[in-house]
Amino acid sequence: MTESVYKKVEIIGTSPLGVSEAIKQAIDKAGESLRHMSWFEVKEIRGHIDAAKDNQVLFQVTLQIGFRLE
Amino acid sequence: MTESVYKKVEIIGTSPLGVSEAIKQAIDKAGESLRHMSWFEVKEIRGHIDAAKDNQVLFQVTLQIGFRLE
Amino acid sequence: MTESVYKKVEIIGTSPLGVSEAIKQAIDKAGESLRHMSWFEVKEIRGHIDAAKDNQVLFQVTLQIGFRLE
Amino acid sequence: MTESVYKKVEIIGTSPLGVSEAIKQAIDKAGESLRHMSWFEVKEIRGHIDAAKDNQVLFQVTLQIGFRLE
Amino acid sequence: MTESVYKKVEIIGTSPLGVSEAIKQAIDKAGESLRHMSWFEVKEIRGHIDAAKDNQVLFQVTLQIGFRLE
Amino acid sequence: MTESVYKKVEIIGTSPLGVSEAIKQAIDKAGESLRHMSWFEVKEIRGHIDAAKDNQVLFQVTLQIGFRLE
Amino acid sequence: MTESVYKKVEIIGTSPLGVSEAIKQAIDKAGESLRHMSWFEVKEIRGHIDAAKDNQVLFQVTLQIGFRLE
Amino acid sequence: MTESVYKKVEIIGTSPLGVSEAIKQAIDKAGESLRHMSWFEVKEIRGHIDAAKDNQVLFQVTLQIGFRLE
Amino acid sequence: MTESVYKKVEIIGTSPLGVSEAIKQAIDKAGESLRHMSWFEVKEIRGHIDAAKDNQVLFQVTLQIGFRLE
Amino acid sequence: MTESVYKKVEIIGTSPLGVSEAIKQAIDKAGESLRHMSWFEVKEIRGHIDAAKDNQVLFQVTLQIGFRLE
Amino acid sequence: MTESVYKKVEIIGTSPLGVSEAIKQAIDKAGESLRHMSWFEVKEIRGHIDAAKDNQVLFQVTLQIGFRLE
Amino acid sequence: MTESVYKKVEIIGTSPLGVSEAIKQAIDKAGESLRHMSWFEVKEIRGHIDAAKDNQVLFQVTLQIGFRLE
Repeated sequence: MTESVYKKVEIIGTSPLGVSEAIKQAIDKAGESLRHMSWFEVKEIRGHIDAAKDNQVLFQVTLQIGFRLE
Repeated sequence: MTESVYKKVEIIGTSPLGVSEAIKQAIDKAGESLRHMSWFEVKEIRGHIDAAKDNQVLFQVTLQIGFRLE
Repeated sequence: MTESVYKKVEIIGTSPLGVSEAIKQAIDKAGESLRHMSWFEVKEIRGHIDAAKDNQVLFQVTLQIGFRLE
Repeated sequence: MTESVYKKVEIIGTSPLGVSEAIKQAIDKAGESLRHMSWFEVKEIRGHIDAAKDNQVLFQVTLQIGFRLE
Repeated sequence: MTESVYKKVEIIGTSPLGVSEAIKQAIDKAGESLRHMSWFEVKEIRGHIDAAKDNQVLFQVTLQIGFRLE
Repeated sequence: MTESVYKKVEIIGTSPLGVSEAIKQAIDKAGESLRHMSWFEVKEIRGHIDAAKDNQVLFQVTLQIGFRLE
Repeated sequence: MTESVYKKVEIIGTSPLGVSEAIKQAIDKAGESLRHMSWFEVKEIRGHIDAAKDNQVLFQVTLQIGFRLE
Repeated sequence: MTESVYKKVEIIGTSPLGVSEAIKQAIDKAGESLRHMSWFEVKEIRGHIDAAKDNQVLFQVTLQIGFRLE
Repeated sequence: MTESVYKKVEIIGTSPLGVSEAIKQAIDKAGESLRHMSWFEVKEIRGHIDAAKDNQVLFQVTLQIGFRLE
Repeated sequence: MTESVYKKVEIIGTSPLGVSEAIKQAIDKAGESLRHMSWFEVKEIRGHIDAAKDNQVLFQVTLQIGFRLE
Repeated sequence: MTESVYKKVEIIGTSPLGVSEAIKQAIDKAGESLRHMSWFEVKEIRGHIDAAKDNQVLFQVTLQIGFRLE
Repeated sequence: MTESVYKKVEIIGTSPLGVSEAIKQAIDKAGESLRHMSWFEVKEIRGHIDAAKDNQVLFQVTLQIGFRLE
């Protein structure tokens, strides 16, 4: 890490597959608009349960993504 | 909640009336620039006391607002 | 408080009016099945924002309710 | 805020009406003995439930009040 | 989420496979006795290490499950 | 710990003698209705002070008790 | 608890005997100058180890004591 | 630390120079009215930004100061 | 503080000199794109250690900066 | 405390008797290998419940022990 | 768990595959030098994002590992 | 950061000069026995006040230091 300034944004990724997949989805989406992404921190793991569909789970993972300011 | 990606911003609403009014003011203001707002989470409740005006109170409520990314 | 044993349950009340109203709704509902309720503690204040209805707010307050075991 | 020193005290206000009313009551009471009150921070929201009186609620809000030292 | 009242219970799921599998196991088990499950929140991730079996891991995930009261 | 599912309940034990005695009282009481209790976690230690009785203390210890679901 | 206003002070009790004894010592000392004490909350348990005296322990328990304002 | 009773007060020091200077200012001010001060704990570091004066910073550090009761 | 709405962003400043210098660097950088900055809150203090360069330290301070929305 | 450097280790003591006894057991054991122990901080209080033995309790207290580096 | 004394160390495992894999890697590595490992607790989930390699993720999971002292 | 395993130790640095100086002192001391140090995280800032010496301050900063395992 150089003597730069960084900023964090908070993103929620979702996936029916699992925690790690939801994290990757959030980073992929954030990468569409952010450059110089450098690290992430998981802040919350939760999810939706669909009682009408045999209690199917949708994982929702909140992460902060840090990126270098130009 | 669908398999979308969401983002959170942190907003402070203020009101002389009470906690719930400060929350609503923050959401109204955020709605001027954000679409697809979906939920909020209260992070802090504090306020200003005006000693010069008979200890009048201004409620300040910090909330995170989640909205769906397009 | 006497030398009794107490138990806590966690309930989420909801109201479009405000934080205090959501708390009261949760206690009213819990009172239908619990006797000897003695105190509550607010654990989280959050809410739903309905973007399709002019950003209308539904307050959701999570509280723990303590009651005496017989 | 000037280059002064401040002190905080911790006060619990109570009200049967709601959270915001309990906050105001605490500040009114504190104002009887403190000068130069400047801000407050809510630390806990809880309350008493009176099972003998149809589950009537008494809101109890703990706040820290900051005031400038002379 | 409608203007209903919800309740949370705290369940620990276990799995030798991973974090996401332990979450699903907990929800499947809870679904045997709970109706209207709506969401979950992960509270703790820990696990057992079996030193006698080549340090095999059993993931233990504590979650709160929210469900609508009828 | 085997590959089972566990549940936690939150109980407050009380005793004039001390913290450890309040914990034991809570577990004894819980044991009247719960089977397969496996562990506890202390969440809060507080107590009542009886100003009218020479500041006598009643210890109140909140614990979560984990038990295996059958 | 009536519709009064309460205040909290933070006191550290010490004892070579144990946690409960340190709590009682703090309340006894506080009772010399405070009236209407009503409850306490344990905030921290720590202690001094005297390496020069065979690792003798002095328990130090920080508690907040709540009392009614007149 | 002897078998004494201690008390904590919460003070906010301010300084345009830095975090450590704000801590020292708070302790100097507290020393005008408190005897037997023994330790401090930093609880919060924040500050004021003066947008009208080229974003000049005033550091505000909240600390708890422990002192021995006589 | 007037009855305005505020927003917070999260910025990480870095400096080889110390904590206070990293805070100032973050605010200077943020001031290039934000107007009406009003306060900051320190959320985390950490840093990089360069083992290859005699364990030289680069302080990294995460702060939230609050500014008034127009 | 002099201008020395200190280190902390995290130890779990156990005892069927109570919280204070488990703390002392941990410190006694740590004293077998550590010199210059100076203080401890309780991080967690939990315990094992033996359902097969009339719900007998084994207290488990996690503490950090600080000692001076030579 | 018998009436033994336990110790905890804090280890960070890394993996490009996911959270559970990083946990297992940390335990495997710790097992090279520790005997009698008994449990782990996840303290933090974060990761590195390599902007130069199409935002590839390296999961970093901090865990505390508890083991029995002989 | 490569696909390595890291370990953290917890060290307290002290200095009469300030927070940043205490951090540097802790890292210097740790460097005498640890190789491959990579980062640190501040966990607590506190200090000793010497009432007998005009309230002189000794800053005590607790940090976790992460280093790569070989």
